[in-house]
Amino acid sequence: MSTIFDKILDGEIPCHRVYEDEHVLAFLDVGPLSRGHTLLIPKERKAQIHELSDEAAAAMGRVLPRLARAILAATGATAYNVLQNNGGAASQVVEHVHFHIIPRYASSGLGLVWKASLLDADEAGRLVAGLREALAQD
Amino acid sequence: MSTIFDKILDGEIPCHRVYEDEHVLAFLDVGPLSRGHTLLIPKERKAQIHELSDEAAAAMGRVLPRLARAILAATGATAYNVLQNNGGAASQVVEHVHFHIIPRYASSGLGLVWKASLLDADEAGRLVAGLREALAQD
Repeated sequence: MSTIFDKILDGEIPCHRVYEDEHVLAFLDVGPLSRGHTLLIPKERKAQIHELSDEAAAAMGRVLPRLARAILAATGATAYNVLQNNGGAASQVVEHVHFHIIPRYASSGLGLVWKASLLDADEAGRLVAGLREALAQD
Repeated sequence: MSTIFDKILDGEIPCHRVYEDEHVLAFLDVGPLSRGHTLLIPKERKAQIHELSDEAAAAMGRVLPRLARAILAATGATAYNVLQNNGGAASQVVEHVHFHIIPRYASSGLGLVWKASLLDADEAGRLVAGLREALAQD
């Protein structure tokens, strides 16, 4: 299924291009939460980050510091959130991996609702065992 | 200044270790937003992602797909958010770069407040010019 980001990658839809290299493309979000809200996408066409190749994911990570520095320099922002949603239940809208880089200003930016619990030790033991087993079998 | 994550890296404080390699460490968040909430940190000691070396940032990116797959497999979750906060105004608490990987379930996970605007074309032009200039000078 072709997403709007595929169409941007194919040049069928224009974008406000910020950065591009062999592996990634960065452009302004047309529905920004704040001034300078930028999207970073891989050229590899995967919906969610657990589907992405190690190489594409590394290329995404590699460019984040540089992009963040540019956003801070160009906007004057001093704080920002990096967000990447996977699945409709987690607020993903476009089904192509994307990182949001969202400057935080006094009155605009990403709002977070943080309802933390306390990690139970038994539960932690079970989780770590399950996670390590899954990693070993990957 | 030594953060709690430095103490974890130094072995002074225990953690529920999920994954470790030359560049990164992943462990359970002791104040989880949902079951399986995991933190991924670089061994490079920087407060915010714009300060991180390209290599450390690439290593963080590279392991994200694998960690996400393990979290989905171990928890049964099908949606999740990846979040990285920079600066107190952006809800950063521990001043050492960290990615949150937060499974989303029906009744727990990360809450987002999304107050989007519409990108103005003139503003977009100014932003892109500023961002490209900043990238060129980096």
